[in-house]
Amino acid sequence: MTFTFEVLVTLKPGLADPQGKAVEASLPAMGFANVSGVHVGRHVRLDVEATNEATAAAQVEEVARRLLSNPVIEDFRVLQSATADGAA
Amino acid sequence: MTFTFEVLVTLKPGLADPQGKAVEASLPAMGFANVSGVHVGRHVRLDVEATNEATAAAQVEEVARRLLSNPVIEDFRVLQSATADGAA
Repeated sequence: MTFTFEVLVTLKPGLADPQGKAVEASLPAMGFANVSGVHVGRHVRLDVEATNEATAAAQVEEVARRLLSNPVIEDFRVLQSATADGAA
Repeated sequence: MTFTFEVLVTLKPGLADPQGKAVEASLPAMGFANVSGVHVGRHVRLDVEATNEATAAAQVEEVARRLLSNPVIEDFRVLQSATADGAA
Protein backbone atom coordinates (compact mmCIF):
# COMPACT_ATOMS: atom_id res chain seq x y z
CA MET A 1 0.00 0.00 0.00
CA THR A 2 1.28 3.48 -0.76
CA PHE A 3 1.02 6.17 1.88
CA THR A 4 1.67 9.82 1.12
CA PHE A 5 3.19 12.03 3.79
CA GLU A 6 4.15 15.65 4.07
CA VAL A 7 7.06 16.78 6.20
CA LEU A 8 7.24 20.38 7.35
CA VAL A 9 10.73 21.48 8.30
CA THR A 10 10.98 24.72 10.28
CA LEU A 11 13.82 26.62 11.89
CA LYS A 12 13.98 26.31 15.66
CA PRO A 13 12.57 29.36 17.46
CA GLY A 14 15.04 32.17 18.01
CA LEU A 15 17.31 31.41 15.08
CA ALA A 16 17.92 34.05 12.43
CA ASP A 17 15.50 33.63 9.52
CA PRO A 18 16.65 35.93 6.71
CA GLN A 19 14.08 34.59 4.25
CA GLY A 20 11.28 35.32 6.69
CA LYS A 21 12.67 38.79 7.35
CA ALA A 22 12.83 39.48 3.60
CA VAL A 23 9.17 38.53 3.21
CA GLU A 24 8.20 40.66 6.22
CA ALA A 25 10.11 43.65 4.82
CA SER A 26 8.10 43.47 1.59
CA LEU A 27 4.69 43.27 3.21
CA PRO A 28 4.05 46.89 4.34
CA ALA A 29 4.67 48.23 0.81
CA MET A 30 2.03 45.79 -0.46
CA GLY A 31 -0.52 47.00 2.07
CA PHE A 32 -0.18 44.17 4.57
CA ALA A 33 1.02 46.02 7.65
CA ASN A 34 -0.97 43.57 9.83
CA VAL A 35 1.05 40.51 8.82
CA SER A 36 4.03 39.57 11.00
CA GLY A 37 5.98 36.64 12.42
CA VAL A 38 6.92 35.27 9.03
CA HIS A 39 9.09 32.15 9.07
CA VAL A 40 10.15 30.29 5.97
CA GLY A 41 10.90 26.57 6.01
CA ARG A 42 10.67 23.56 3.73
CA HIS A 43 7.79 21.34 2.71
CA VAL A 44 8.57 17.84 1.48
CA ARG A 45 6.01 15.39 0.15
CA LEU A 46 6.87 11.73 -0.29
CA ASP A 47 5.28 8.35 -1.00
CA VAL A 48 6.08 5.33 1.14
CA GLU A 49 5.33 1.77 0.09
CA ALA A 50 4.60 -0.25 3.23
CA THR A 51 2.27 -2.92 4.57
CA ASN A 52 0.71 -0.63 7.15
CA GLU A 53 0.49 2.98 8.16
CA ALA A 54 2.49 2.66 11.40
CA THR A 55 5.51 1.22 9.57
CA ALA A 56 5.29 3.92 6.91
CA ALA A 57 4.99 6.69 9.50
CA ALA A 58 8.01 5.39 11.43
CA GLN A 59 10.07 5.36 8.23
CA VAL A 60 9.05 8.90 7.35
CA GLU A 61 10.06 10.06 10.83
CA GLU A 62 13.47 8.51 10.29
CA VAL A 63 13.89 9.99 6.79
CA ALA A 64 12.87 13.40 8.14
CA ARG A 65 15.30 13.18 11.03
CA ARG A 66 18.27 11.81 9.11
CA LEU A 67 17.92 13.37 5.67
CA LEU A 68 15.35 16.15 5.44
CA SER A 69 16.16 18.22 8.49
CA ASN A 70 19.21 19.43 10.34
CA PRO A 71 18.40 18.56 13.97
CA VAL A 72 20.79 21.18 15.31
CA ILE A 73 18.82 24.10 13.88
CA GLU A 74 15.53 22.66 12.62
CA ASP A 75 12.38 20.98 13.86
CA PHE A 76 10.07 18.89 11.71
CA ARG A 77 6.47 17.79 11.76
CA VAL A 78 4.92 14.96 9.75
CA LEU A 79 1.42 15.13 8.26
CA GLN A 80 -0.15 12.13 6.62
CA SER A 81 -1.94 13.39 3.58
CA ALA A 82 -3.47 10.39 1.81
CA THR A 83 -3.43 6.72 1.02
CA ALA A 84 -2.84 6.33 -2.68
CA ASP A 85 -4.57 2.96 -3.15
CA GLY A 86 -7.61 1.85 -1.17
CA ALA A 87 -8.50 2.27 2.49
CA ALA A 88 -5.77 2.48 5.11
CA MET B 1 -7.26 38.95 17.09
CA THR B 2 -4.17 37.19 15.78
CA PHE B 3 -4.56 34.26 13.44
CA THR B 4 -1.65 32.01 12.51
CA PHE B 5 -1.55 30.45 9.08
CA GLU B 6 0.76 28.12 7.24
CA VAL B 7 1.23 28.33 3.51
CA LEU B 8 2.58 25.32 1.63
CA VAL B 9 4.11 26.22 -1.72
CA THR B 10 4.69 23.30 -4.10
CA LEU B 11 5.94 23.02 -7.65
CA LYS B 12 3.23 22.32 -10.20
CA PRO B 13 3.10 18.66 -11.28
CA GLY B 14 5.42 17.74 -14.13
CA LEU B 15 8.02 20.41 -13.52
CA ALA B 16 11.62 19.43 -12.86
CA ASP B 17 12.30 19.19 -9.13
CA PRO B 18 16.07 18.82 -8.65
CA GLN B 19 15.85 19.08 -4.85
CA GLY B 20 13.33 16.24 -4.77
CA LYS B 21 15.48 14.16 -7.12
CA ALA B 22 18.53 14.74 -4.90
CA VAL B 23 16.63 13.49 -1.86
CA GLU B 24 15.35 10.47 -3.80
CA ALA B 25 18.84 9.64 -4.98
CA SER B 26 20.09 9.50 -1.37
CA LEU B 27 17.33 7.27 -0.06
CA PRO B 28 18.36 3.81 -1.36
CA ALA B 29 21.81 4.09 0.20
CA MET B 30 20.14 4.81 3.54
CA GLY B 31 17.94 1.73 3.26
CA PHE B 32 14.75 3.43 2.12
CA ALA B 33 14.23 1.84 -1.28
CA ASN B 34 10.45 2.01 -0.70
CA VAL B 35 10.28 5.81 -0.55
CA SER B 36 9.58 7.64 -3.82
CA GLY B 37 7.78 10.62 -5.33
CA VAL B 38 9.76 13.15 -3.31
CA HIS B 39 8.92 16.79 -3.99
CA VAL B 40 10.46 19.69 -2.14
CA GLY B 41 8.64 22.99 -1.67
CA ARG B 42 8.41 25.81 0.83
CA HIS B 43 6.56 26.16 4.11
CA VAL B 44 5.76 29.65 5.35
CA ARG B 45 4.13 30.45 8.67
CA LEU B 46 2.72 33.89 9.37
CA ASP B 47 0.57 35.78 11.86
CA VAL B 48 -2.28 38.00 10.70
CA GLU B 49 -3.91 40.60 12.91
CA ALA B 50 -7.57 40.91 11.84
CA THR B 51 -11.05 41.27 13.28
CA ASN B 52 -12.22 37.92 11.98
CA GLU B 53 -10.95 34.71 10.45
CA ALA B 54 -12.47 35.23 7.00
CA THR B 55 -10.68 38.57 6.54
CA ALA B 56 -7.40 37.09 7.74
CA ALA B 57 -7.75 34.06 5.45
CA ALA B 58 -8.47 36.28 2.43
CA GLN B 59 -5.35 38.33 3.17
CA VAL B 60 -3.20 35.24 3.51
CA GLU B 61 -4.46 33.99 0.15
CA GLU B 62 -3.46 37.28 -1.42
CA VAL B 63 -0.01 37.33 0.25
CA ALA B 64 0.54 33.72 -0.88
CA ARG B 65 -0.48 34.51 -4.45
CA ARG B 66 1.39 37.79 -4.84
CA LEU B 67 4.50 37.32 -2.71
CA LEU B 68 5.09 33.75 -1.53
CA SER B 69 4.53 31.78 -4.72
CA ASN B 70 5.32 32.08 -8.39
CA PRO B 71 1.95 31.32 -10.01
CA VAL B 72 3.60 30.28 -13.29
CA ILE B 73 5.36 27.27 -11.77
CA GLU B 74 3.95 26.85 -8.24
CA ASP B 75 0.71 26.03 -6.46
CA PHE B 76 -0.03 26.91 -2.86
CA ARG B 77 -2.29 25.69 -0.10
CA VAL B 78 -3.21 27.54 3.08
CA LEU B 79 -3.65 25.82 6.45
CA GLN B 80 -4.94 27.69 9.45
CA SER B 81 -2.93 26.51 12.39
CA ALA B 82 -4.12 28.44 15.43
CA THR B 83 -5.66 31.53 16.94
CA ALA B 84 -3.08 33.15 19.14
CA ASP B 85 -5.44 34.87 21.56
CA GLY B 86 -8.78 33.44 22.67
CA ALA B 87 -11.41 31.54 20.70
CA ALA B 88 -11.91 32.20 16.99
